[in-house]
Amino acid sequence: MDTEFKIIEEPDLDDPILIEGLPGIGNVGRIAAEYMIKHLDAKKFAELYSPHFMPIVLIDDDEVSLLKFEFYYWKNDNGNDVIFLIGDSQAGKEGSRGHFEVSESVLDLAKRFGVKRILTLGGYSTGDLGDEMEEGPEVLGAVTHKEMIDEFDEFNINFEDTGSNIGMIVGGTGLLLGMAKKRDMDGLCLMGETAGFPILTDPMSAESIVEIVSDIFNMDIPLDDMDEKVKEMEDFLEKLEGLQKKSMKQMDYGDDGDDEKLRYIG
Amino acid sequence: MDTEFKIIEEPDLDDPILIEGLPGIGNVGRIAAEYMIKHLDAKKFAELYSPHFMPIVLIDDDEVSLLKFEFYYWKNDNGNDVIFLIGDSQAGKEGSRGHFEVSESVLDLAKRFGVKRILTLGGYSTGDLGDEMEEGPEVLGAVTHKEMIDEFDEFNINFEDTGSNIGMIVGGTGLLLGMAKKRDMDGLCLMGETAGFPILTDPMSAESIVEIVSDIFNMDIPLDDMDEKVKEMEDFLEKLEGLQKKSMKQMDYGDDGDDEKLRYIG
Amino acid sequence: MDTEFKIIEEPDLDDPILIEGLPGIGNVGRIAAEYMIKHLDAKKFAELYSPHFMPIVLIDDDEVSLLKFEFYYWKNDNGNDVIFLIGDSQAGKEGSRGHFEVSESVLDLAKRFGVKRILTLGGYSTGDLGDEMEEGPEVLGAVTHKEMIDEFDEFNINFEDTGSNIGMIVGGTGLLLGMAKKRDMDGLCLMGETAGFPILTDPMSAESIVEIVSDIFNMDIPLDDMDEKVKEMEDFLEKLEGLQKKSMKQMDYGDDGDDEKLRYIG
Amino acid sequence: MDTEFKIIEEPDLDDPILIEGLPGIGNVGRIAAEYMIKHLDAKKFAELYSPHFMPIVLIDDDEVSLLKFEFYYWKNDNGNDVIFLIGDSQAGKEGSRGHFEVSESVLDLAKRFGVKRILTLGGYSTGDLGDEMEEGPEVLGAVTHKEMIDEFDEFNINFEDTGSNIGMIVGGTGLLLGMAKKRDMDGLCLMGETAGFPILTDPMSAESIVEIVSDIFNMDIPLDDMDEKVKEMEDFLEKLEGLQKKSMKQMDYGDDGDDEKLRYIG
Repeated sequence: MDTEFKIIEEPDLDDPILIEGLPGIGNVGRIAAEYMIKHLDAKKFAELYSPHFMPIVLIDDDEVSLLKFEFYYWKNDNGNDVIFLIGDSQAGKEGSRGHFEVSESVLDLAKRFGVKRILTLGGYSTGDLGDEMEEGPEVLGAVTHKEMIDEFDEFNINFEDTGSNIGMIVGGTGLLLGMAKKRDMDGLCLMGETAGFPILTDPMSAESIVEIVSDIFNMDIPLDDMDEKVKEMEDFLEKLEGLQKKSMKQMDYGDDGDDEKLRYIG
Repeated sequence: MDTEFKIIEEPDLDDPILIEGLPGIGNVGRIAAEYMIKHLDAKKFAELYSPHFMPIVLIDDDEVSLLKFEFYYWKNDNGNDVIFLIGDSQAGKEGSRGHFEVSESVLDLAKRFGVKRILTLGGYSTGDLGDEMEEGPEVLGAVTHKEMIDEFDEFNINFEDTGSNIGMIVGGTGLLLGMAKKRDMDGLCLMGETAGFPILTDPMSAESIVEIVSDIFNMDIPLDDMDEKVKEMEDFLEKLEGLQKKSMKQMDYGDDGDDEKLRYIG
Repeated sequence: MDTEFKIIEEPDLDDPILIEGLPGIGNVGRIAAEYMIKHLDAKKFAELYSPHFMPIVLIDDDEVSLLKFEFYYWKNDNGNDVIFLIGDSQAGKEGSRGHFEVSESVLDLAKRFGVKRILTLGGYSTGDLGDEMEEGPEVLGAVTHKEMIDEFDEFNINFEDTGSNIGMIVGGTGLLLGMAKKRDMDGLCLMGETAGFPILTDPMSAESIVEIVSDIFNMDIPLDDMDEKVKEMEDFLEKLEGLQKKSMKQMDYGDDGDDEKLRYIG
Repeated sequence: MDTEFKIIEEPDLDDPILIEGLPGIGNVGRIAAEYMIKHLDAKKFAELYSPHFMPIVLIDDDEVSLLKFEFYYWKNDNGNDVIFLIGDSQAGKEGSRGHFEVSESVLDLAKRFGVKRILTLGGYSTGDLGDEMEEGPEVLGAVTHKEMIDEFDEFNINFEDTGSNIGMIVGGTGLLLGMAKKRDMDGLCLMGETAGFPILTDPMSAESIVEIVSDIFNMDIPLDDMDEKVKEMEDFLEKLEGLQKKSMKQMDYGDDGDDEKLRYIG
């Protein structure tokens, strides 16, 4: 089994932008993307399965299912339709090849539907509850080509401090940008500030992201009911994270000091 | 060397069901499946070898042999013949790709013999010796398609608590279901409650599983001599588990604090 | 780069037997095989290179060279020529696939030269300096097909206790047997008792092995100068083992508690 | 995605030599190579990308980019043009296959441009600040074919002590030599002595290397401004090393004792 797609529908899209939100720091990207999908009533048209996800099935809503990525589309009026990508998990839980292989597959699908620009969403951790938080979480930006910075000048994105503050982007959120650049697409990454580790899922940071994305693409997404809607996503994502950690622990046997480990495998 | 089959016989099977039992929690699935194979005198028709098993050979019954999966068939009268799958080991001892690759191979073989439904058997750990144990171990169920729950309504399977109690299934027992679903087969997983860690192999839990499977498929399997018959399987499985742990320890060198490790390799 | 051969010569061999000796417990197999190669003046005809060896080059005799396996042939008078396989290292230092892939390649080469039987040589550790040592190290045997035990009845090999005492053979020495069996070859493994861990390389155990192999194949190998000849092999093998451990330590970075690690890489 | 090249220009080169400098001990090789590239104004003509690098993108100079190797050429007058290879990182951060695969790709490119000899540059650690340091760092040499030692006799390279002092070369700097030898190229490795671990980047050691390389190839490179020029490379390399360590730490989850880890992924 290689990384593979299940195509549900072949939508006809106008100059689409890919917007990615995978689980990660504060689950900022994933929550932001899923909130937009729900609000815009975007339609699922494809799924991606990969042996680079954890070898587990989730039991949810009375059925088992493999971990997967999901692609949704939304027909916009402004000339740029949108493909949203959300996932149960980052790929590559067991090695960097997974990140590369799955990101390459995502870009293959993107190219097939005519995508020339991608937008990846994530979080970055400041590690403290600083003063800036009073004015809401800041959003850092990074681009594939520096000329793009001017293009997004009017939005509330801090491009100046990204290099010095974080210096790199780890996992799918970064690789998609880097690999898009190599394939002559361009891309933008938005990273919402999250206060620190005790907060697992950070809706406020996701809200800052949604606000900017909605402005850029004229999505007209109200944020007043976001807190509430995020609650259910949060429960699912925290369950998912807990299960993946548990399963990673269960598969990490070989350490004979801990006989319990081997006993967990199904 | 890729994952590969050694086909011993090509049986002609009527609408067969695949029943899987691999080593795992309490060895519940493996013991249940092997007990049925022995009682029904099912016939071995194929073996599966894979580089995703441990790089060891067992010395058993005066001969060396690679770790393997074994497939047995049993001609049933009720319109559904049965293919049993048992294994010396879970695949993927060293990474999740192994679980995916071997599960895919199993489903390839299943498809070739016309399997449309699979039944996977395992255990789940409650972590304690609760009161429920007085009425025998409970059996939790999970399905690929929720409509199937009604179909198995008459048997003593708890589907309600599976999602909330365990939430996921790790390894081959889960992946076979998830991947079957992706390939348009359907599937059921039965997981027998085991009391906890001090018990390595749990015949009582396996008995609960055998009872239900026997009912579903009209196998007419008496359970009165199960304790005794399980004894020899138990010895083999515990030896196997011990050897795999030992070999994993032996191969885990690189830690120069433990000079003994390198010295074990053959 | 895949596992690949460099064929130096294509010898014409009569019904050859492959005799393998890789580094391992007490380096028994490797020393025994190399001693026979030197004494019989066997001729190198092939090398095997693989990305499953450590990513290092040795600097030896003023030149750098990759880790490799070496194949030598010896024309025997008794109808069975011999191919010797020795190696700088076990394959699969980083995962079991390496063991399988390299063993498969070795058998491919063996088949190409008409090998139908293989003999693998190793050591097993008793963990103590018991009384049996007074009569010299015992040699345990294991076979691919139990009928073979009678065939080797006349030699001083203990087949009875192999299953119960060690139960498995780890790495190339075992896999070559198991995979040969799957490919319809047959095989014998001889494992020399070594006293325990403080002894790194065990010439006495290797001597017991050489004695039996010499008997089986009428090699007429005197053992009186073995101690001396083994000395130089021992130095090389211990250097090799030290370097591999050191390099494994150097490559195991990622643990930021130990800043030295990253600094070692060339 | 496999290891792949982005060819920017196809220079016409006369009997070129490949000179490699990757990050490593004291960053000696990388700094030496980059200093020569800058001083000679060598021109970039190719990049190499690989899934064996870390799955991160750097944010540098306001843009994101994947980790990569870079190839530069310099037209020399003495009959041997030069290809320089520098990289952001060693390949194979997660396993030895990466080192082999990327080194093989480098040699493919080298062959395509007619390279018959390679020169790899690195450092070796003495672990102390010995007296020899008073006369500047010593440079050890290793060759693929011992006849080459005479050829480099006139330069200040110590070939005698390489085997006994270090015995092996780890990673790309060594593998490139070993694999070149297997492909019938020849090669030389120069390793500059560095004092020990507290010094992260060692310009003095790099200077010793540059001096010798400049002599060998008549590059006429003055060393008086090297300290200053090295400063900026040093900053970038130390940032890079810090980011890679941080990202490796972030990806190493599964250890549920450290809940912070999972939270970092973008």
